[in-house]
Amino acid sequence: MEDLMQKIVSFSKRRGFIFPSSEIYGGFGSCYDFGPLGVELKKNIKKAWWDEMIKKQNDIVGLDASILMNPRVWKASGHLSAGFADELVECKKCHHRFRKDFVNSPAGEKCPDCGGAFTKAKKFNLMMKTSVGPVEDDASIAYLRPETCQGIYVNFKNIMQSMRLKVPFGIAQIGKAFRNEINPKDFIFRTREFEQMEMQWFCEHQKADKFFEYWLKQRLNWYYKLGINKKNLRIYEVPKKELAHYAKRAVDIEYKFPFGWKEIEGIHNRGDWDLSNHAKNSGEDLKYEGYFPHVIETSVGVDRSLFVFLTEAYQEIKGGRSGKTNTEIFLEINRILAPVKVAVLPLVKNKPEIVKKAKEIYRSLKTEFVTLYDQTGSIGRRYRRLDEIGCIFAVTVDFDTLKDNAVTIRDRDTMKQKRIKIKELSQFLNQELK
Amino acid sequence: MEDLMQKIVSFSKRRGFIFPSSEIYGGFGSCYDFGPLGVELKKNIKKAWWDEMIKKQNDIVGLDASILMNPRVWKASGHLSAGFADELVECKKCHHRFRKDFVNSPAGEKCPDCGGAFTKAKKFNLMMKTSVGPVEDDASIAYLRPETCQGIYVNFKNIMQSMRLKVPFGIAQIGKAFRNEINPKDFIFRTREFEQMEMQWFCEHQKADKFFEYWLKQRLNWYYKLGINKKNLRIYEVPKKELAHYAKRAVDIEYKFPFGWKEIEGIHNRGDWDLSNHAKNSGEDLKYEGYFPHVIETSVGVDRSLFVFLTEAYQEIKGGRSGKTNTEIFLEINRILAPVKVAVLPLVKNKPEIVKKAKEIYRSLKTEFVTLYDQTGSIGRRYRRLDEIGCIFAVTVDFDTLKDNAVTIRDRDTMKQKRIKIKELSQFLNQELK
Repeated sequence: MEDLMQKIVSFSKRRGFIFPSSEIYGGFGSCYDFGPLGVELKKNIKKAWWDEMIKKQNDIVGLDASILMNPRVWKASGHLSAGFADELVECKKCHHRFRKDFVNSPAGEKCPDCGGAFTKAKKFNLMMKTSVGPVEDDASIAYLRPETCQGIYVNFKNIMQSMRLKVPFGIAQIGKAFRNEINPKDFIFRTREFEQMEMQWFCEHQKADKFFEYWLKQRLNWYYKLGINKKNLRIYEVPKKELAHYAKRAVDIEYKFPFGWKEIEGIHNRGDWDLSNHAKNSGEDLKYEGYFPHVIETSVGVDRSLFVFLTEAYQEIKGGRSGKTNTEIFLEINRILAPVKVAVLPLVKNKPEIVKKAKEIYRSLKTEFVTLYDQTGSIGRRYRRLDEIGCIFAVTVDFDTLKDNAVTIRDRDTMKQKRIKIKELSQFLNQELK
Repeated sequence: MEDLMQKIVSFSKRRGFIFPSSEIYGGFGSCYDFGPLGVELKKNIKKAWWDEMIKKQNDIVGLDASILMNPRVWKASGHLSAGFADELVECKKCHHRFRKDFVNSPAGEKCPDCGGAFTKAKKFNLMMKTSVGPVEDDASIAYLRPETCQGIYVNFKNIMQSMRLKVPFGIAQIGKAFRNEINPKDFIFRTREFEQMEMQWFCEHQKADKFFEYWLKQRLNWYYKLGINKKNLRIYEVPKKELAHYAKRAVDIEYKFPFGWKEIEGIHNRGDWDLSNHAKNSGEDLKYEGYFPHVIETSVGVDRSLFVFLTEAYQEIKGGRSGKTNTEIFLEINRILAPVKVAVLPLVKNKPEIVKKAKEIYRSLKTEFVTLYDQTGSIGRRYRRLDEIGCIFAVTVDFDTLKDNAVTIRDRDTMKQKRIKIKELSQFLNQELK
């Protein structure tokens, strides 16, 4: 399975999905860049989430809060305290630090960098610090937000008032967050810079349990609808004794990655802790009709879910899809998510009328759909390249096109081909890809 | 004109466009949060840019690079040097720092904080620093990118290879950047955290001048098409002697803000400096067919252009749009950009059948268009609230609706009303809003 992981990493780079950040300078930490196909896939995932959580649901509005916030937010939320920290030991000689569990591993008796002895474990905060303004002193310290939800809580009142909302309602946000993970790993699964899609649902106490079930079901259905096999998803009910002090209930949605079952989304009943706590610390009245609404949160990573969809779709087929060739890669990704919807292929590249017509069609389709143009290699070879990236339709312009103004269109999933008039292409694709 | 500025700031908060970040804790620096309507407007601007620069143009692909990058990138690009810095003076007593030009102003002879004397001016770098990994030493320093374009240059080869591109081609990116501005000001015009939309066009040397003209024209047209009056835009040709050392030509597109003419977008001919310089510093071959392509860059801020569209659209009409009421605010924003497209209004709120029908229509329309539901106040008052946020259509459900299954639809711009069958609403709106 580790082998599959390596294949996905290498495929992602080769086909323009994901590159190591600053790769020409040797990369950087656990940072990754999304290439041309990665950007489209990411946009499609965010849109699918926004459509599901805002457009299709009632009473949910959006927010886009800044990454830098007043540090008092993090004092109030508890992120500046020992709770949001990893336990580290420090080498007494070279002062390098390691996770406490490393010391308990066979390799961990001495510092691997200098052989020195370790201190006792101490807490190390996961927030990334920076300094804002001209003087680097305590007053100018700021943090890169470690989660997006605090931006929602501190804007609760402004949003409720400006949008004239009544409880129950939700606030949804997509945005970047940063955590100084000691041990980032597993490609884009755990990175220091990541993007979250979070929704906070504010409701009456008595209805919180019911809404928890509702949102858990909604979120599971989102994955199913987008092509994730039920057998690759499971839920994990976090035991009462492991819950955060303010949490009433927490359920993780887990996916079966090549490296094991891992959390991809959390559904949390946070009670009234966030609003009451920010009210206390800020002195603002954050009550609705005399009470603090309870919060049900759904929280998922963009990068992490992108990894899920890529993993689920990636297949290597021995003998190829025809059964008669070498092993082929086939990215069987949901139509809504597929980064490229159409490709236009001139049958031959040395016949100017065919190339011209193909480019015309390409230019017209690309204003509506993400479209590729490819004139290199045999048609079969080009189909295989398109199957690799999960392109839904391939449109071939051939000699007959010059006479009948029609093209051959191939469906990725059925591999069936049919003839269609050029002037009907846009309507056909709109219907199929809606 | 400063008065207009204050009105826009206050309007933006009241109607859910833009809130001061962490406002319940007294705000933070120059950070702002985009509320429910601000998010929609921002999304529409980004989509309009992406549609123009990627979908409608040929041979441009997208990228989404990380904010944290290998610090060697910033050494190579020159951002770690004195060039990317403000000149500051420091108070000898309290060590607070001020921009050099402050000292030359009437208020600036002594430190305003403690009355102390100033040092000579020295350079202060604008990049925000952070630390990555468990040890805060020199080796762990990282910077928040001060511009997005470097992510494009360092990915040039990976993108060209994975996407099989041939020069000329472009790489476009939307993403956040950070600058520790000493003097952030003018609402969201100059902030420390901001979002850029940049496109880098790679071409042969001989064609760079021609492409420069092409992109300048394209970019100007983008503003015109989205409703910016030609008299509020002008171009400023940066004089040769003020150009960055590597720049061949630079033109600023300026907008007439309430606080004066200010740059909103830059078109730059950067020659082959970026690729040749990164090739030299990284040791990678970044040539295309034996030469370094020249770069034409178009660079605009999301926040800044949002500010432009809001300012351009904001109007206060004495006597109201009817000429018979109090002063009214009218946000005459382009249909593509308008954050809310439709509103559904039950004529009265105490007639259950009307309310039920209105909610049905609202729920059906909101899956397709950003839609509001409003049942509070007279219809005239609700129209005025909708004009304030530039909502394009208002759909009123009245007593007749219960008999004829039709509604009254009002057009924001003409204020004309017409009767339309409920079942034809979606098609009508799709046609009008496309």
